[in-house]
Amino acid sequence: MSKQLRFSANINTFNACADRYVISGYGERLTVDQLIQAATKVEGLSGVEVVGMWHVNDKNIETLHRQIRDAGFEVSCVTPDIWASSKWGWGSFTSNDPKIRRDAIQEVKKSMEWASQLNCKVVDLWFGQDGYDYPFQTNYALAWDRLIEGTQECAEHVSEVNLVLEYKPKEPRTHCFLATVGKTLLLMDKVNKPNVGAMIDIGHALEAYENTAESVALLNHFGNKLFYMHFNDNWRLWDDDMTVGSVHTIETLELLFWLEKVNYNGWYALDIFPYRENGIRAASESIRWIQGLTDVLDRIGRKRFETVIASGDAMDGSALLREAFLGQPNRYAHSYESLPA
Amino acid sequence: MSKQLRFSANINTFNACADRYVISGYGERLTVDQLIQAATKVEGLSGVEVVGMWHVNDKNIETLHRQIRDAGFEVSCVTPDIWASSKWGWGSFTSNDPKIRRDAIQEVKKSMEWASQLNCKVVDLWFGQDGYDYPFQTNYALAWDRLIEGTQECAEHVSEVNLVLEYKPKEPRTHCFLATVGKTLLLMDKVNKPNVGAMIDIGHALEAYENTAESVALLNHFGNKLFYMHFNDNWRLWDDDMTVGSVHTIETLELLFWLEKVNYNGWYALDIFPYRENGIRAASESIRWIQGLTDVLDRIGRKRFETVIASGDAMDGSALLREAFLGQPNRYAHSYESLPA
Amino acid sequence: MSKQLRFSANINTFNACADRYVISGYGERLTVDQLIQAATKVEGLSGVEVVGMWHVNDKNIETLHRQIRDAGFEVSCVTPDIWASSKWGWGSFTSNDPKIRRDAIQEVKKSMEWASQLNCKVVDLWFGQDGYDYPFQTNYALAWDRLIEGTQECAEHVSEVNLVLEYKPKEPRTHCFLATVGKTLLLMDKVNKPNVGAMIDIGHALEAYENTAESVALLNHFGNKLFYMHFNDNWRLWDDDMTVGSVHTIETLELLFWLEKVNYNGWYALDIFPYRENGIRAASESIRWIQGLTDVLDRIGRKRFETVIASGDAMDGSALLREAFLGQPNRYAHSYESLPA
Amino acid sequence: MSKQLRFSANINTFNACADRYVISGYGERLTVDQLIQAATKVEGLSGVEVVGMWHVNDKNIETLHRQIRDAGFEVSCVTPDIWASSKWGWGSFTSNDPKIRRDAIQEVKKSMEWASQLNCKVVDLWFGQDGYDYPFQTNYALAWDRLIEGTQECAEHVSEVNLVLEYKPKEPRTHCFLATVGKTLLLMDKVNKPNVGAMIDIGHALEAYENTAESVALLNHFGNKLFYMHFNDNWRLWDDDMTVGSVHTIETLELLFWLEKVNYNGWYALDIFPYRENGIRAASESIRWIQGLTDVLDRIGRKRFETVIASGDAMDGSALLREAFLGQPNRYAHSYESLPA
Repeated sequence: MSKQLRFSANINTFNACADRYVISGYGERLTVDQLIQAATKVEGLSGVEVVGMWHVNDKNIETLHRQIRDAGFEVSCVTPDIWASSKWGWGSFTSNDPKIRRDAIQEVKKSMEWASQLNCKVVDLWFGQDGYDYPFQTNYALAWDRLIEGTQECAEHVSEVNLVLEYKPKEPRTHCFLATVGKTLLLMDKVNKPNVGAMIDIGHALEAYENTAESVALLNHFGNKLFYMHFNDNWRLWDDDMTVGSVHTIETLELLFWLEKVNYNGWYALDIFPYRENGIRAASESIRWIQGLTDVLDRIGRKRFETVIASGDAMDGSALLREAFLGQPNRYAHSYESLPA
Repeated sequence: MSKQLRFSANINTFNACADRYVISGYGERLTVDQLIQAATKVEGLSGVEVVGMWHVNDKNIETLHRQIRDAGFEVSCVTPDIWASSKWGWGSFTSNDPKIRRDAIQEVKKSMEWASQLNCKVVDLWFGQDGYDYPFQTNYALAWDRLIEGTQECAEHVSEVNLVLEYKPKEPRTHCFLATVGKTLLLMDKVNKPNVGAMIDIGHALEAYENTAESVALLNHFGNKLFYMHFNDNWRLWDDDMTVGSVHTIETLELLFWLEKVNYNGWYALDIFPYRENGIRAASESIRWIQGLTDVLDRIGRKRFETVIASGDAMDGSALLREAFLGQPNRYAHSYESLPA
Repeated sequence: MSKQLRFSANINTFNACADRYVISGYGERLTVDQLIQAATKVEGLSGVEVVGMWHVNDKNIETLHRQIRDAGFEVSCVTPDIWASSKWGWGSFTSNDPKIRRDAIQEVKKSMEWASQLNCKVVDLWFGQDGYDYPFQTNYALAWDRLIEGTQECAEHVSEVNLVLEYKPKEPRTHCFLATVGKTLLLMDKVNKPNVGAMIDIGHALEAYENTAESVALLNHFGNKLFYMHFNDNWRLWDDDMTVGSVHTIETLELLFWLEKVNYNGWYALDIFPYRENGIRAASESIRWIQGLTDVLDRIGRKRFETVIASGDAMDGSALLREAFLGQPNRYAHSYESLPA
Repeated sequence: MSKQLRFSANINTFNACADRYVISGYGERLTVDQLIQAATKVEGLSGVEVVGMWHVNDKNIETLHRQIRDAGFEVSCVTPDIWASSKWGWGSFTSNDPKIRRDAIQEVKKSMEWASQLNCKVVDLWFGQDGYDYPFQTNYALAWDRLIEGTQECAEHVSEVNLVLEYKPKEPRTHCFLATVGKTLLLMDKVNKPNVGAMIDIGHALEAYENTAESVALLNHFGNKLFYMHFNDNWRLWDDDMTVGSVHTIETLELLFWLEKVNYNGWYALDIFPYRENGIRAASESIRWIQGLTDVLDRIGRKRFETVIASGDAMDGSALLREAFLGQPNRYAHSYESLPA
């Protein structure tokens, strides 16, 4: 039987989502209080993510903490905003402007302090603006030194809070430095701090032509470094931030299988942009898909998936997945026993 | 209740598959006779595709026809080989060499005649070599005129056999002329013959960032021009020719739903390259996935999918798909009734 | 010698560009008056695009027309806003809500009237919101009927203004109905109005794995239907809206070659999003790249490109492109004459 | 002034290239002797790559060495064949069959010995078959342990020969384990041997949405680990193995700039598949493009590119690249001096 999963969502899931065309957003703008209230409508949700300065600041932190607790939530993650204003447009930790670099590091440190006050273990380091758009625009080696140094300095600031690196190949820059799981392992190796780990955002990994299950295995195998998970789905070429299970059924199942296999015990956090959908329903559907896929693993039995993996036999895998998803016995009961391997 | 589907496979499915590195192939090379015998091992298969000159020629056609009938199969499709030797490397119908163009047209005509003799209604026009690799290499307008003229000439040759255009964005050329469903509709419009229609190869459509269900709808809506289907799956970026259902569960379900909705009554033909898998098992798994997904439509009821589609409500769709694939009632029984739309 | 090209840019090029993270934009927000003033700083620019309701409305049209003329510009295009507010989030012409469909058609008609008053021949029909995000969300056939009917109704409204269809595979929807050049030819065929044509937006075409030169050839060859051009560049997988020539040097040259070859005499309009760049410089660089590439065609001579295309010899093409772009004679003067073809 | 570059090509460049459709190849099959003779026709070529067992074996090695030397070449690289027969279809170092793993390691060791005898410093470790095709087919962690152990064992075998890891996201498997530059840095870190480094194959990097210049910078910055280079070009989505400079002009220039900047002094080796082109011409064109682009750096001056990079100003970069590639002064001489930054 599978263990109880802990689900979280950024409270902004329930706010109007904007894109570059509809910058006022597709839905209604809510206050922080309203966002927390919306979160309570999502069955199964026990954690919330908040963004530094958007939702939490030095003045409101005690009130906010009380609101969140009163609503029945833990804070699963605090995300420093080092990517959502024009100030960061040319990079945060890797900006050519030392003042901006300093401010970005300061922003992260503040989020770590807030996390600590909110009994939250995770601060999300997403370097969305740290990259480049055009050829001949960047000294890549210098940028990496800055990524390493900035992350080290932050890691030392509050040692009991974990910094989790969130990689992504592109957007908002056409190329982000921290693009793939491999580069994330590189950065963690060079930073070399126990409280610096990684998260996988499903959509970012898909966009990088990664199989998320494989990325889980690598982050776990090389240093037990998978600290957090962002769930969503997309059409593989862009970070569409759709609800979980909406496109990639089998890959999401394999991901969930591997998360259990490596004893991942962090949050199952949603990172979706329900532009045109109701945020409460979108979060609820996502949780139900995760839960339902976990039930499939229960029902079929993890041992049988282990056997298929060990054999490397894709057709055995196909048959098991049919049983898992199509449920009913097939019309064609023909056995393969007499066939060549 | 869904109607009985007719499944077919190219007999080469059971032969060794090669790629550009392992040109001798990953499996065993079989004779045509052995290929037909292999096909009989696939439960549910009632049709076979053959390739002109590879499997059928003027001399062996009667023997072949008898072998195929004796094995219990119909011939679903004859595919002229206008792409598998270096002769066609610079194009078939669009070659700059008039002799090659003539030979290619002749090759198609012969396949149409063989099809007729084999009681087969379908000849597959796949212009794999008709395209270009480099910029500044082609007069695109001239190439299209040649595509149109060649196809018209063939269509007139045997009017009771249907030519089905098989589009694909790339491979073996870096760019193929007949790349997308839209261009296929264009070519059919310009050719303007009742016996020229289209097929969708799932993998080719995925590679073109098409939703196969949408492509079915378009080919049907504009002239009832969907004459044939090639089933397989891939990772969306290349024609991996994997077994059906191995990656795209939901999209394949939507495809099957639309095939029924538009009353498609052609073959459900497999076009897979089981490089490292046993061809019999790969074909069997593919058929079982198609059948199993069709059973899902039966079980859930097509009306409910129609309702979801008509509403445009993606979260209703998500819930229905959970019911379809995850089977068991969810732990979270919470209703959305009180939520805003 | 090449003819004089007419360059245009949307005046919003000079405004702050937003993305979904930095929704307030990376630069400074300007008034319409300031935007027009900014445009005058771009050497070579003689046309501007305006967006309905953003820049032009019934009240300001005379003033605006005077401002634009006084600044030395023609209006090259009016774009109706049927995609930039949450109202259109579920589609414009294809919305399930008849009231929205009506409003969208009305919006386009108004833009046609404004275009007429502004002595502008082009109204840009970009159906950005007309598509879908999730599987099982849409009746594709119904949507196409609505696209056709809406476009026909508009086309009849002001017959001397051209409607130009702007296709794009995705964004803001994960799938847009009017996705490719082939589908655009289909829509034009079904609409069947002389004043309905197409534009190619380079970035949209690249995203669709089209070669823009090929798309020019097709739109011209089948009905002389290329009415407008949007210039920009990207990294091929997303509509990055970068400055012209920043990534795809050779393909842009081939595009310009074909535009001349088919006697395109419409505007060379810029459609760039210079998020972090100064808009005036970004527009100026784009124009200079187009002009500079045209100069390359002048210098090398179009006949030689024709010869290379007619031969289909990619290595002859490579040598000619080296001469075109690398200028200096090569160190290796070795001739290929003695080599096999 | 740039230093003299050393160019190499696999002698198989001059042989018939096959793909999965035309498995007999598009050209003529030549003997090893003929392949070496063909290589002598390529001006500027001073090195050749050979493949273990295809071209070199215990019996022919002395003859072969003499032939190569007599033809005026050095051997730049020996590539063990651990990917071109069905034996390796389920992996080499990562096969589940210990006998296959052993054979693969033995194959690499033999190539290292041959390399040593041929005065060659480089053995190319391309794990093309080490990966997976389907979900739920692989224990990723176990596979990585095998990659690490096998590579370590080989590295110790002949310490004066360098093993260079050649990463690639896919093909012939739908997913290869050693997919990206980041994973390559991970493998080198875990193997931790001085004679294990990396190569960049341009096409593989493009397919991974890497900027090759950035990958050069990373491999150099973290351990000086860029040991070899494979040059070619493609359309970014597949390993088309086209001639150098045929698509990506600016990115190839930036790559060459960075190779010099990091003092890369290895071979500039071609890895192209001229399916339909004459191999001698294809190799010659590739070398001339590399040489011509290097001349551009000479002519413009590397300092100016350094300045542009340091500024991060993409529009300054654009102007410099116009000067580099479009040569003639622009018609629009307008200066940007008075514009805002």
